Amino acid sequence: MNFITFTETNLRTFTESVFKKMGCSDEHAKLAADVLIRSDLRGIDSHGVARLSGYVRLWEKKRINPTPNIKIVHETPTTATVDGDAGLGLVVAPFAMKVAIAKAEQYGSGWVSVKNSNHFGIAGYHALMAVEKDMIGISMTNASPLVAPTYANERLLGTNPMCYAFPAGKYPPVIVDMATSAAANGKLEIAQRAEKSVPEGWVQDQHGNGSVNPNELKSGGSLLPLGSDKDHGSHKGYGLGATVDILSAVLSGANYGPWVPPFVAFLEPSANPVGEGLGHFLGAMRVDGFRPAADFKNHLDNWVSRFKNAETVSPDQKVIIPGEPEYEFEQERKVSGIPIIEVVVKDLNELASKLGIEPLKV
Amino acid sequence: MNFITFTETNLRTFTESVFKKMGCSDEHAKLAADVLIRSDLRGIDSHGVARLSGYVRLWEKKRINPTPNIKIVHETPTTATVDGDAGLGLVVAPFAMKVAIAKAEQYGSGWVSVKNSNHFGIAGYHALMAVEKDMIGISMTNASPLVAPTYANERLLGTNPMCYAFPAGKYPPVIVDMATSAAANGKLEIAQRAEKSVPEGWVQDQHGNGSVNPNELKSGGSLLPLGSDKDHGSHKGYGLGATVDILSAVLSGANYGPWVPPFVAFLEPSANPVGEGLGHFLGAMRVDGFRPAADFKNHLDNWVSRFKNAETVSPDQKVIIPGEPEYEFEQERKVSGIPIIEVVVKDLNELASKLGIEPLKV
Repeated sequence: MNFITFTETNLRTFTESVFKKMGCSDEHAKLAADVLIRSDLRGIDSHGVARLSGYVRLWEKKRINPTPNIKIVHETPTTATVDGDAGLGLVVAPFAMKVAIAKAEQYGSGWVSVKNSNHFGIAGYHALMAVEKDMIGISMTNASPLVAPTYANERLLGTNPMCYAFPAGKYPPVIVDMATSAAANGKLEIAQRAEKSVPEGWVQDQHGNGSVNPNELKSGGSLLPLGSDKDHGSHKGYGLGATVDILSAVLSGANYGPWVPPFVAFLEPSANPVGEGLGHFLGAMRVDGFRPAADFKNHLDNWVSRFKNAETVSPDQKVIIPGEPEYEFEQERKVSGIPIIEVVVKDLNELASKLGIEPLKV
Repeated sequence: MNFITFTETNLRTFTESVFKKMGCSDEHAKLAADVLIRSDLRGIDSHGVARLSGYVRLWEKKRINPTPNIKIVHETPTTATVDGDAGLGLVVAPFAMKVAIAKAEQYGSGWVSVKNSNHFGIAGYHALMAVEKDMIGISMTNASPLVAPTYANERLLGTNPMCYAFPAGKYPPVIVDMATSAAANGKLEIAQRAEKSVPEGWVQDQHGNGSVNPNELKSGGSLLPLGSDKDHGSHKGYGLGATVDILSAVLSGANYGPWVPPFVAFLEPSANPVGEGLGHFLGAMRVDGFRPAADFKNHLDNWVSRFKNAETVSPDQKVIIPGEPEYEFEQERKVSGIPIIEVVVKDLNELASKLGIEPLKV
């Protein structure tokens, strides 16, 4: 596969101009672009500008409101429900995380469930907002139903990611940011492009039989929960996906389970929704609500150091600290630029042409 | 295997008298027994009275303080750190959950990290305390190091369970209560007793090679994280185990990672501890901090109903709602009694003889 490398600035300018063409305010366009570019910087290519034309198609279908009135509709000192007014999740989730952080500043912790939103990009972006304030950040979202619970032959859950992020001292933050399915959909897409099979335990076919065909989702198959099968704990991955769904949507009044509106614009949302849009859940806890922040960071550094230096099965593969690979990508790509796969560049330039904006600059 | 069935009352009386012999107050003995008996009632036999002699052995080694002065050592309106004073986790964790619930009553949510504790039984017990107050309950604990992170050939994490519990309306609470390893240690013990092999993906041997031998942990092997291998997302199980460890211990000042004191009394705790005892993390959020409780419960009932009635791969295996099997066990065993495996009955009666109390009554 061929890649073209862009500077962060050029990619950012382009992305902002796309959101402005959708009618977003300058502030929202800048924020939404920041979420996508940060994903590309961090090496999570599936969630960055590669999704830009998907957001535009949802806007064309009037399923994204570019000028949302995002507001708190219910609250206590440390909890709130936010109505995203069908805005971009890329701006709704940061709004909600700011609410959580403000509550945590005052009371030690803050928790926000969000309804009437859309896809929020990478979970890590939002959790890191809390980490920058010496807080523990939590973020989750439900998503288009693609995953079959253990024993089911129906797609009832999204890949429903959960993220926990912790501030360290001399090391980068520890960030656990994971889909609750065995494999994220992006990994299937990579196998599709490469025309390769996928490992057993990622998908089942339309009859519920295990399959290694990465195209199985196109013919009625499903992704499998983390754990893959009952013997290996797929009920746990299903339970985690359920937890994300309940905190994000049953708690806020968004759609849950099979009712979550699909990200792809060619599939219509449910005719009988059980809530509004899709849902997120965001939380922030002050580290110094539990012990002095310096003590926590010193011990987290010690934790990181011990795990990094663990004895390994193979001498050439060290133990990886959660969040470390994304941090390394970010340091490197900030300097040497962001490689974008040619098919995505082509898609973005067609988008530019359609919207009447400047094409991407190398 | 042969079982002997006891009434809940007889098992409870016996267990209370063991804790009283350790020097626990009547109130603590009653509470500790309640946690263990509830585990047996709920069908989680590995965490009930089968562990009683293990607690006694830790007490004999002076690693459990039967008369702890459990107290809050740091707090904000919605966060706290509790020092368990080396008490039984079975009484320390309920103390901490009560603190979390009291904070949630006043401010919407409450979060407590606990140090200087011991094993707390089943995570679900503590989370259910919040559910009874129409709150969402969260409970986690770190545990003796048995799990090797992805790529590691060392035991650095416990099976570190996490539990999320939600109150429903007409259905039982939805309770996700899971070890973050591919299989809990109790499942290995069952295979050992039955002299059967275990599925691939549960354990690795002392060299880091996959194994199907349930005795592998006795010769330097390790449990594997949920996901089993990198291809199937073991880095996610490792990340979840890490999250539990950090929230329970790095945040509170307990021991973390390989420093967590072992549950078995014949293994000595680390000579150079990084904290005090082991750690828990407990949380409570008022449902009506987000939306009216009746609305939440109606929608959670709808969620449960939709998942229960999902199309399945096999007509004779329905989709299971998290917490449903344990609920059914509890209803049934409250009526027909609790079957205890003979080897455990023998162990308990030897314990009775050693402590000079009445043996178990059938």
